[in-house]
Amino acid sequence: MKARLEKFFNAKTFCVVGASTTPNKPGNVVAYNFVNFFPGKTYLVNPKGGELYNNKLYKSVLEIDDSIDAACIIVPARYAPLALQECGKKGIKNIIVTTGGFSEIGDEGIKLQQQMLDIMKEFEITVIGPNCLGLYSPALGYDTMFLPDSKLKRPTNGPVSIFTQSGAFGAAFIDQLSRLGSGKWVSKFISYGNASDINETDSLEYVGQDPDTKMIIIYLEDFKNGREFMQKAREISLKKPIMGIKANRTETGAKAGASHTAALSANDVIVDDLLNDAGIIRVITWDQLEDCVLVFGTQPLPLGNNVAIVTDGGGAGVMASDMVSDCGLTLAKFSAEVQKKLDDTFPSFYSTGNPIDITGSATAEDYRIALESVYDDPNVDSIVNICIPVIPDLDIEEYIKITKELAKRKEKPFVTALVGGEEADYATAELLKDDLPAFESPGRAVRALGMLTEYTKYLQKHSVDPKSIKMED
Amino acid sequence: MKARLEKFFNAKTFCVVGASTTPNKPGNVVAYNFVNFFPGKTYLVNPKGGELYNNKLYKSVLEIDDSIDAACIIVPARYAPLALQECGKKGIKNIIVTTGGFSEIGDEGIKLQQQMLDIMKEFEITVIGPNCLGLYSPALGYDTMFLPDSKLKRPTNGPVSIFTQSGAFGAAFIDQLSRLGSGKWVSKFISYGNASDINETDSLEYVGQDPDTKMIIIYLEDFKNGREFMQKAREISLKKPIMGIKANRTETGAKAGASHTAALSANDVIVDDLLNDAGIIRVITWDQLEDCVLVFGTQPLPLGNNVAIVTDGGGAGVMASDMVSDCGLTLAKFSAEVQKKLDDTFPSFYSTGNPIDITGSATAEDYRIALESVYDDPNVDSIVNICIPVIPDLDIEEYIKITKELAKRKEKPFVTALVGGEEADYATAELLKDDLPAFESPGRAVRALGMLTEYTKYLQKHSVDPKSIKMED
Repeated sequence: MKARLEKFFNAKTFCVVGASTTPNKPGNVVAYNFVNFFPGKTYLVNPKGGELYNNKLYKSVLEIDDSIDAACIIVPARYAPLALQECGKKGIKNIIVTTGGFSEIGDEGIKLQQQMLDIMKEFEITVIGPNCLGLYSPALGYDTMFLPDSKLKRPTNGPVSIFTQSGAFGAAFIDQLSRLGSGKWVSKFISYGNASDINETDSLEYVGQDPDTKMIIIYLEDFKNGREFMQKAREISLKKPIMGIKANRTETGAKAGASHTAALSANDVIVDDLLNDAGIIRVITWDQLEDCVLVFGTQPLPLGNNVAIVTDGGGAGVMASDMVSDCGLTLAKFSAEVQKKLDDTFPSFYSTGNPIDITGSATAEDYRIALESVYDDPNVDSIVNICIPVIPDLDIEEYIKITKELAKRKEKPFVTALVGGEEADYATAELLKDDLPAFESPGRAVRALGMLTEYTKYLQKHSVDPKSIKMED
Repeated sequence: MKARLEKFFNAKTFCVVGASTTPNKPGNVVAYNFVNFFPGKTYLVNPKGGELYNNKLYKSVLEIDDSIDAACIIVPARYAPLALQECGKKGIKNIIVTTGGFSEIGDEGIKLQQQMLDIMKEFEITVIGPNCLGLYSPALGYDTMFLPDSKLKRPTNGPVSIFTQSGAFGAAFIDQLSRLGSGKWVSKFISYGNASDINETDSLEYVGQDPDTKMIIIYLEDFKNGREFMQKAREISLKKPIMGIKANRTETGAKAGASHTAALSANDVIVDDLLNDAGIIRVITWDQLEDCVLVFGTQPLPLGNNVAIVTDGGGAGVMASDMVSDCGLTLAKFSAEVQKKLDDTFPSFYSTGNPIDITGSATAEDYRIALESVYDDPNVDSIVNICIPVIPDLDIEEYIKITKELAKRKEKPFVTALVGGEEADYATAELLKDDLPAFESPGRAVRALGMLTEYTKYLQKHSVDPKSIKMED
């Protein structure tokens, strides 16, 4: 069976109901997006008629002399039922309602949303929303995000699909990804708001079977149908990583959520177990999600638990090792050959155990020797490359070059932590430009590796080879 | 009794033993620092003689015809005992040995360090180091950090004193603070390396009684004398906040530490209890330390546990509320007056509970009303100001202005989280320029408040008024 969202994304004809001639108004932005980027045929509707972006403004959908595959309704909430009914009469079966002012605002809105539900049933319409951003796919030129590009920057085509219960979360995260590295991150984005029809399970089903989606990021506050969702997740997580935030973890969060999308907080320990069992990697804070994109989106999965750390600062090595332990990882024991090479090459005051501490005397060449040695060591599954660039003999450009080469080999996950001020920031920016994972602290770098390795362990537990998971075709 | 470090910082005459004419070599950098910034008299020693920075290079300390209050020895490890002995003969009682290659490198180094100890005893010398960065105080023009300013940027004078077991940690953190906001952060910096003499307890004692130190940041891997340290900490933490990292939390970390400063990992649960009992706020990751500086260094302590959250995104409000709960904080119940004002002013689809969700329709004026109302509410002890700037009607300049005004009132702690891409980064940078606490995620902002509140609770438990703790005189 095809996922219900497929008919939205596969639309060849699309109609914007509520296209506005006022610049930067939601109905204006969405009209602009479709007229300019949608490869199919776009129809615009506004009861006043006229023209917009060289396209005719139809006074009603019923005037359009073509069959419409999907539509977006962007009219004030009180007019939405009528607009939906007209679309129903026109035979449009797939409709995004971005407008807010429904169940999320209380009694009056709940009544309005019920009217919508009745119409949906009558005309057999599938609805995304209301109270949402709708859909975005840069590759498909599909964009109902009603915030102008000057406000909400769009990331371009890439391996990550996202679905979210909170539109604001979605907007912020999309904006965030637009300035992360090359900005080439997003395959499909789905914001389903009040989930009057399409919900988290539909979204998961669609991105799960979408061949262009290589990893899935989710933001949820509650489940419309938790059992079904977990079941689908169990299947899909064996084929592509799923990670995200399940908020409403606490009573306090749940109280906040109640006035937001009428979500109910489940017992969080149970939720945690269920997510775990379904292979969903749960993160707690927003920053961790960006870290997920950086490691899952750019590095291969490790084949095991053994981490090598290279550092020019002992303290940073200790902190990284503490985090290795926190994340259930282990410090690799180097092979005899690699150990001998390190011992023979480095001066006696370098520490050649794991972490390898090449101290404040480190040069870029020392980094090359240490990092390449452990990268090529069969006993090492993943590498943490820590640099405090203040040391005197380090050529930072050379260090960046070496780091880039290794991070691009993609035979093992390779993460970098750059700690300090301006020079650390500069090197971080240089690595991110090439979409390579660079972090501001050793702890954050190790935690990112920890998430990758957690997924490897899940796959191995289910007899799936982690090598089968790839971000590129 | 005066702290032993006082004689170092109060020196009127200072000698650099191992002043080098080779640019950017440690002995060259330290000579440069003292010749240019130290208000007292600087003497330089190099067995070759000659001149450096228009100062005579004495061939031996014994040639100097003045009494020397303190000195820094920067010669290769094997020459260090001899240099120390000559200083002893000269009657110099306070000596920093920055050179590495002692107990941290194993047997040979342990022997060398023992030689040093014997000489220290013989001549009654107090030693900082070896294997350290030594001391830095911008206000006193005191700087033995042997990395050139082009590599290691220096923060300028401010309320924070730092002491650290790891020199590399210290260097990275100093570099980090140089680019945090105005860079006006540091009062005293102490890196004591192998702690052959001066250790964590001496350091704490000194910064504890130093009137220019308003908050204390520490990095430790082990304790030379844990009991004495905790006892001092208990006294000092009632007068100024102490916070920091105690690494070596895990067996893995301890193994890494063993090859670094020969530290032993204690049972971490006990350490945690002891730190807690002594009023030391423990953080785990490097990034949290910067957050500490931002909140403790710029905001007053809250007088209680009640947090108000203002947000334009429901999801962000839920995540912040979850973190409020994680940190043992509570969401404030607004006073009847404030609640009425919010209800009367805002449209019905805004959520006027706590969190206040002014939604994607928010304007800067809405932020002003919401934030000022809760700031002035006696039921509110601290405020979290969350903004996702992608929303259409928000004037970001106006929002920044309002935020600055409130964060500068300093009657209650006020933290801001800006989430998104370029515009969020821009607003964050604008706030940081004025040394106001701005964070990349709601979770991080709330956690920072959590640390502040933890300290308030500690003070109140010990019958100390949190209002007595001030960053400015």
